[in-house]
Amino acid sequence: MTTQAPQQFASDNYAGICPEALAAMMAANAGSAVAYGDDDWTQRAADAFRRLFEAECEVFFVFNGTAANSLALASLGQSYHSVICAASAHVETDECGAPEFFSNGSKLLVAPTSGGKLTPEAIRTLATSRSDIHFPKPRVVTITQPTETGQVYTIEEIRSISSVCRELGLKLHMDGARFPHACATLGCTPGEMTHGAGVDVLCFGGTKNGMAVGEAILFFDRALAEDFDYRCKQAGQLASKMRFLSAPWTGVLESGAWLRNAEHGNACAHLLADEVAQLPGVRLMFPVEANAVFLEAPVEVLDRLRARGWRFYTFIGGGARFMFAWDAQPERVAELARDLREAVADAEDTALAA
Amino acid sequence: MTTQAPQQFASDNYAGICPEALAAMMAANAGSAVAYGDDDWTQRAADAFRRLFEAECEVFFVFNGTAANSLALASLGQSYHSVICAASAHVETDECGAPEFFSNGSKLLVAPTSGGKLTPEAIRTLATSRSDIHFPKPRVVTITQPTETGQVYTIEEIRSISSVCRELGLKLHMDGARFPHACATLGCTPGEMTHGAGVDVLCFGGTKNGMAVGEAILFFDRALAEDFDYRCKQAGQLASKMRFLSAPWTGVLESGAWLRNAEHGNACAHLLADEVAQLPGVRLMFPVEANAVFLEAPVEVLDRLRARGWRFYTFIGGGARFMFAWDAQPERVAELARDLREAVADAEDTALAA
Amino acid sequence: MTTQAPQQFASDNYAGICPEALAAMMAANAGSAVAYGDDDWTQRAADAFRRLFEAECEVFFVFNGTAANSLALASLGQSYHSVICAASAHVETDECGAPEFFSNGSKLLVAPTSGGKLTPEAIRTLATSRSDIHFPKPRVVTITQPTETGQVYTIEEIRSISSVCRELGLKLHMDGARFPHACATLGCTPGEMTHGAGVDVLCFGGTKNGMAVGEAILFFDRALAEDFDYRCKQAGQLASKMRFLSAPWTGVLESGAWLRNAEHGNACAHLLADEVAQLPGVRLMFPVEANAVFLEAPVEVLDRLRARGWRFYTFIGGGARFMFAWDAQPERVAELARDLREAVADAEDTALAA
Amino acid sequence: MTTQAPQQFASDNYAGICPEALAAMMAANAGSAVAYGDDDWTQRAADAFRRLFEAECEVFFVFNGTAANSLALASLGQSYHSVICAASAHVETDECGAPEFFSNGSKLLVAPTSGGKLTPEAIRTLATSRSDIHFPKPRVVTITQPTETGQVYTIEEIRSISSVCRELGLKLHMDGARFPHACATLGCTPGEMTHGAGVDVLCFGGTKNGMAVGEAILFFDRALAEDFDYRCKQAGQLASKMRFLSAPWTGVLESGAWLRNAEHGNACAHLLADEVAQLPGVRLMFPVEANAVFLEAPVEVLDRLRARGWRFYTFIGGGARFMFAWDAQPERVAELARDLREAVADAEDTALAA
Repeated sequence: MTTQAPQQFASDNYAGICPEALAAMMAANAGSAVAYGDDDWTQRAADAFRRLFEAECEVFFVFNGTAANSLALASLGQSYHSVICAASAHVETDECGAPEFFSNGSKLLVAPTSGGKLTPEAIRTLATSRSDIHFPKPRVVTITQPTETGQVYTIEEIRSISSVCRELGLKLHMDGARFPHACATLGCTPGEMTHGAGVDVLCFGGTKNGMAVGEAILFFDRALAEDFDYRCKQAGQLASKMRFLSAPWTGVLESGAWLRNAEHGNACAHLLADEVAQLPGVRLMFPVEANAVFLEAPVEVLDRLRARGWRFYTFIGGGARFMFAWDAQPERVAELARDLREAVADAEDTALAA
Repeated sequence: MTTQAPQQFASDNYAGICPEALAAMMAANAGSAVAYGDDDWTQRAADAFRRLFEAECEVFFVFNGTAANSLALASLGQSYHSVICAASAHVETDECGAPEFFSNGSKLLVAPTSGGKLTPEAIRTLATSRSDIHFPKPRVVTITQPTETGQVYTIEEIRSISSVCRELGLKLHMDGARFPHACATLGCTPGEMTHGAGVDVLCFGGTKNGMAVGEAILFFDRALAEDFDYRCKQAGQLASKMRFLSAPWTGVLESGAWLRNAEHGNACAHLLADEVAQLPGVRLMFPVEANAVFLEAPVEVLDRLRARGWRFYTFIGGGARFMFAWDAQPERVAELARDLREAVADAEDTALAA
Repeated sequence: MTTQAPQQFASDNYAGICPEALAAMMAANAGSAVAYGDDDWTQRAADAFRRLFEAECEVFFVFNGTAANSLALASLGQSYHSVICAASAHVETDECGAPEFFSNGSKLLVAPTSGGKLTPEAIRTLATSRSDIHFPKPRVVTITQPTETGQVYTIEEIRSISSVCRELGLKLHMDGARFPHACATLGCTPGEMTHGAGVDVLCFGGTKNGMAVGEAILFFDRALAEDFDYRCKQAGQLASKMRFLSAPWTGVLESGAWLRNAEHGNACAHLLADEVAQLPGVRLMFPVEANAVFLEAPVEVLDRLRARGWRFYTFIGGGARFMFAWDAQPERVAELARDLREAVADAEDTALAA
Repeated sequence: MTTQAPQQFASDNYAGICPEALAAMMAANAGSAVAYGDDDWTQRAADAFRRLFEAECEVFFVFNGTAANSLALASLGQSYHSVICAASAHVETDECGAPEFFSNGSKLLVAPTSGGKLTPEAIRTLATSRSDIHFPKPRVVTITQPTETGQVYTIEEIRSISSVCRELGLKLHMDGARFPHACATLGCTPGEMTHGAGVDVLCFGGTKNGMAVGEAILFFDRALAEDFDYRCKQAGQLASKMRFLSAPWTGVLESGAWLRNAEHGNACAHLLADEVAQLPGVRLMFPVEANAVFLEAPVEVLDRLRARGWRFYTFIGGGARFMFAWDAQPERVAELARDLREAVADAEDTALAA
């Protein structure tokens, strides 16, 4: 297996299971338990969420982020309604049409943004651009916190978005695939950033927080959760041995690992950013506010980095993305910084020699 | 937690993770791995299936049986096609409309059966009952092996079914939620029971075979698998940390645990059946051919059994179901047999006293 | 063209456009009109319905019965809900999965009935048979008035059905493909048979009432109609030149033709039934309560009838269906009766000779 | 009714039924005819299309353009495939998510264009932009002929598009809501512009060509039409009295009205364009190549035009659209030109006076 290979930072999905999640999973493996979520572990995990969010929210556990976001969005509207999102939102760019599939046809209305952050103005413009029957009626706004490029909405920004949503009759969904990283950045409580700021539904990412599999969906307005359990079942998202999906949440939530893991990822991102930001020809494409670093660098520099064994995604125009998970090794981050520094130097030497 | 409570046989979903699956999951947890299935564990698991089935089949890993069967069926037809199944098939009775949801409207055409086994005659009757445009065109047959009540199709029976399917232009899908139990019963190879007998697509259950989560879909006709990976992705069934879904398969397949686990479940079912079949007023509702025992018994007997702490599903007319997983404790089976015996005796005493 | 061929009674869809509908269509053809329903004809047609039903209902015009019923049912539940109907309901037997398609997966739960009439008991049994998450939650009941075999629910029967619906939290939909025929039979007002008896939504058939194309959907509970115009648009049921779909309704409703047409169809059915009911070997399969006559007759009799040029649908066991539209010619009905009489006589002669 | 009001050019859907279509509908109304398309009129209409297109194509008749395009696109791919179209394509901007609904989730990939005309380069860029599983696989290209703003693809342009489609494994669909207008402009045969240029499927608009209701779908590659009749049925697009949908086609196709109607609309558009193109402050936003005229004019001019009783759609930046149907009255076009001229003059006077 590949397990001995040096660590890579191409994706925070490359990481394994964090110790707290694993321990809970192992504990849950003792003996038999009732299936389909009627077990004590699932109850305990839901309660842990309610305590953490200081709210009597409804909690559901599903397998992955595609399903979590798509089911949540589908529950907030009908097929002939539309969902306002950033042009760079994951639901728009990387879900192979899953939101449209689960909703049976809801259209995503995309707004151009900077750093993936929607604004009240952009929402208002899209939501009021048309009111005729030939255009799917806007009913939902989805924001990603932090965004796909690592930007974090301030609580004030979320409030101003939820305010325009209330005014226009729109529900507010938050894609929190890396929600803990935003909490770590803002230093606020989960409740402040969600129901306290007007969010109706949150998808809280477990996979990128250190679990093997699983996401949680939290409905702060419990009326919106009516029959959502049936929706999950029909859509193939009800785990028969639910305890293995829910127990890890007790591990990360009760121990505080959910936040520590995120803080560690964020810190590693800052570590890299601080080391390489001043390199000639290298530029941070976005301010580092979570666990992602997007670097703009000459193609020859990135090629040299790859030649040194590093894996990473690149984007049009020379951008390279590095993501730091709960298990990121600081010494390996330092190696990456050193290799990048040397790649820059080598490229310069070659250029001078030419 | 409930872990210290005595073992129950209400469902084979009550069991935990078998040692072989767990060991592989732990091994897979070392280091980082590429996401979304482009990792070595996933390749190794698919290869293990191909070796086991002695076929160059296409293999996909999804989260649960609802999704596995629904996606497989959807891939074999269009929304205006129909699927022939037994009236007692799980896809008809217990999936909350999932096959209809994933296919966007394919109708299930149900045949009454004995023990849940479809016959070539029943298939022919349904498939040829209508040929007008107002009736969804039959395109798929799905059989459950073993059936929901534990009956096992012989290879000859499967062959005669696939023969009528070929003749009528129907694809043959096998719901193998407990496929290994059928292999154990028939003593045949997995290949003989599937592609060797004309099955086009198999859903091989992992959860009931000792895994935490996960099912495999095998396309023996590889052309049918075209773009099935996109289908899984869109439907929320692509695991980001796929290794945790695939590695356990290497554990159970390579070690032979897949078959041993099933043999053990079957043996425990026979153990109970042998002990209680002769009890007065108690009757085996179906011959025991896999890991299920369905008992018909007086209501007062079942009530007494429940009063002794046993959990089980009951059915109209007084039937009680017991399912035996890989972890069934023979001494606990014996306890159940003893308690049932005593419940019968107590009920008789009470009846005499009345 | 086939227009000179003698009239057939195989289907009431074989008839053309009645004079009142045609005249309105011609009148609507003068000049230009705003598209998509914002025209005066559409307003006038909706008002005509509201007057006829003595209710401030919401009215929508769609192209055909498949869409009318499927969209109405879809609007009353979600994909994971189910719809209770008679086993012989058109939505179950003859819509190629349309209800499942428009709802993205709602399952139909079918009850065996006599003459296609659901009973409060059958509804209660189905609606309360399961309450677990693996079974799609019942939310809607649909009844066909008159039924597919021409039976008419009394107002009292509808009331007792709506009463159990209210009690169990179910919405009540009426498939009124031949609604006027039921009004003609009962001699009640349209309002008494619908909102007065607890019906939430009615699909009122235009095609079988003498129009070229088009059905109306009436929501008596206006809250249920929220955004239904968007639903129609997205589902391909919004006519651009809506006046041609709506104007004919003004013709048939304002002139009373809607009821006269139905009375005529009913009368012709009785005419045939009275003539042939006493023939030896011929039996009315169902009491004649609307415009349909179902006859059980020996195969050789039906064969002879066909040999005389008659077209009709037959059913398992020798049943033949005859349907009478607004344009049924009484002399042609008499011809059918005579030919049937002679076919019976001929068959008897042949039998005696054998 | 509004029928006596002066003619408006806001939409070509405001027009009534042309004499040739009406006559055929009246002829079809004589006597009874078999339902659901098994009648002579439907056969004759399909044959008329095959003659006109000089091809053995499969022909289907549906109710409106929303359904025609959405069903055709759905038949060319699966839910996890995507459709490439112009950003201004009607399927993207004005169908309330219908393509996504009928396909159960296919995403539209939009390319910015000038005048709504896709280019081979834009198609190639979109089709090859991603090849990972998180992005719906491109399978179809749809072009609108003429475009929404009245531009006409040359045959050479269509050929170059179909060529890149063939190369990339994409099917080519043509939205021909106003197909005859393009034929009139290019002076080519329908066959040359479609199968001769590599188009796989055409939606031929009937409503805008002078019919009351109805569109035709032509599959030049007959294999693509497999079971398309079932698809129409399930989707609520099978007319029971089909003759009224098909007969009008015989009227317009056999008489040549299909082309004459389009020529007339085009001529009226040129009439207006010629009269007003030189007015100060007024500008043709697009070259007039079909029956649409888009004018850019000062807001005060458009306001004055409205004050004179004219109805028209406006677009961001002051554009006004005028559409000319088969029944456009040249003298009424002249009135519009005169009123526009006077509105310009009045606005200038007011500006000078200020």
